[in-house]
Amino acid sequence: MRIHIQNPPEDPYFSVTEEQWRAALARNPDMTGLEVSFARDDAGFARALPETEVLLTWVRSLRQRFPVGALPVAAPKLKVIACTSAGVESAMPFDWLPDSVSLLNNRGTHADKAGEFGIMAILMLQTRMPAFADMQRRGEWKPLHSSTLKGERVVIVGMGSLGGGIARRAKQFGMHVIGVRNSAEPHPDCDETHPTSALDSVLPKASFLVLACPLTEQTRNLLSRERIARLPKGARLVNVARGAVWDQDAICDALESGHLEGCVTDVAVPEPLPADHRLWRTPGMVVTPHVSADDLARYNDHTLDILFANIRALREGRPLPNRIDPARGY
Amino acid sequence: MRIHIQNPPEDPYFSVTEEQWRAALARNPDMTGLEVSFARDDAGFARALPETEVLLTWVRSLRQRFPVGALPVAAPKLKVIACTSAGVESAMPFDWLPDSVSLLNNRGTHADKAGEFGIMAILMLQTRMPAFADMQRRGEWKPLHSSTLKGERVVIVGMGSLGGGIARRAKQFGMHVIGVRNSAEPHPDCDETHPTSALDSVLPKASFLVLACPLTEQTRNLLSRERIARLPKGARLVNVARGAVWDQDAICDALESGHLEGCVTDVAVPEPLPADHRLWRTPGMVVTPHVSADDLARYNDHTLDILFANIRALREGRPLPNRIDPARGY
Repeated sequence: MRIHIQNPPEDPYFSVTEEQWRAALARNPDMTGLEVSFARDDAGFARALPETEVLLTWVRSLRQRFPVGALPVAAPKLKVIACTSAGVESAMPFDWLPDSVSLLNNRGTHADKAGEFGIMAILMLQTRMPAFADMQRRGEWKPLHSSTLKGERVVIVGMGSLGGGIARRAKQFGMHVIGVRNSAEPHPDCDETHPTSALDSVLPKASFLVLACPLTEQTRNLLSRERIARLPKGARLVNVARGAVWDQDAICDALESGHLEGCVTDVAVPEPLPADHRLWRTPGMVVTPHVSADDLARYNDHTLDILFANIRALREGRPLPNRIDPARGY
Repeated sequence: MRIHIQNPPEDPYFSVTEEQWRAALARNPDMTGLEVSFARDDAGFARALPETEVLLTWVRSLRQRFPVGALPVAAPKLKVIACTSAGVESAMPFDWLPDSVSLLNNRGTHADKAGEFGIMAILMLQTRMPAFADMQRRGEWKPLHSSTLKGERVVIVGMGSLGGGIARRAKQFGMHVIGVRNSAEPHPDCDETHPTSALDSVLPKASFLVLACPLTEQTRNLLSRERIARLPKGARLVNVARGAVWDQDAICDALESGHLEGCVTDVAVPEPLPADHRLWRTPGMVVTPHVSADDLARYNDHTLDILFANIRALREGRPLPNRIDPARGY
């Protein structure tokens, strides 16, 4: 089987190295008969494509590289495009993707790191760290006490690997975990699960709300100004999804009015966020620069293990576990 | 048995109420035959003392109220003074305390909250939150990635209820936990334990160092300038003990020089910390105002349950589990 790994031209972190490839083969000894090529430039990509059956690449390049109808001509043997990210919204709409090619993401890579970031954010909000950060700037020593997380209710929107990783940690801290997902299928780390259609009735119960869903046409502006108003006064929010999933301006307004007590967001519109943007200076808002789910020391290893799990499924004629449904967008 | 509860005159939080007392009796149905009185003023205290056998009070008042030799005269029937705190250094030296009176603290009350604060602080330091807070002030979006905690080494000095609570959480995150305590007795949540005398050889291994010991004459300036130099470059520190356990100025110097990467301290010298103090503005330093271990919603309930556990031991002629050894100071 011919695999081509097309690395980003300049990024030092998400480039898969030959050494990582060999280590992944050693971890997955059944992966025999794979012929691999690596490139980071256009010439190398063009050289490899005619024979490539499985392409591993970063998602941002796909739509620009392949206008509608171009891919079957450029890569007639292609069966799988595996992306080195979980979010694939930058490749949407999928009009460029032939039915004969399965698009994969690397969901699963981010669960552990996202779980740690999520519980850190929840603990920071519970402990009033945004208020203490303000006090530290002013040199003010004013104790504000807080309780442990035990029994606090957290609503997690999106129970994929980000949401699942956070739910697992939240349960370890004794929280009552309410999962919101497209199905109402139970989840081992949720006390309750509800379909997205029930979101309006779930929001008033949220002491904490965590956004961890993919950005799709269905989730764009999911947490609208109207829904923010449904949250109880003093609710606290964590966004590890995408900035477009909430109404960013309405969030800032709700923090300024005191309706919301605090937020930790790892995502913003736009990214990178300009220095003069209101989000940086909204009281109670903690901004981190899109780092919540990427454990660089283990990232490419996870991505390759997930690729191999999908190649294994392909060989055995099973459904590919990381396949994106183009209609759903995740 | 005559119990007197002397509450602080003004503090709204740590005053034990009659309702909390009744709820504690309901949780501990064997606690029969207790006669209780409550006061928050000097007159009520003076009225109760002659008959009091067990006194529950806040520690700060003890040395001032009872000059050496005064207590046996004022409270001839007194057997137990139970303090509503874990640290009792403000009552030291114990020259005012007759041998016939056992002094208790409420250790155990703080384990859960301290565990949550400790792991929050470790996660914040691992995730580079002090650097992101600086960037947020400047409006700078610059991703710095970090790995999960799995396999990171944390040295915890003091394996009482604070240190034990933090060790338990650290294990849940897969850290390698090294406990330092007066004995080298194993601890269920430590991968290794070492006696305090081995501290110098343990410090170079610390990716994280957590101070969680009581302040005694032995632990004052325990983390001296010389010992700070023994920590590996880039080490990260958490102090939930007392500000006098480390050399506070040397810590600030080590952050400024880049020898240490970051600190979270919940304690300072002095407390409250003056607005113009260097600690507030040292790069990489996160200061919280002594809130790491007090879960006010559950604090007095815990304190009363611990008092009852000690009264149970007293009745059964067993050693009192929360007794302070005046020679050790904890």
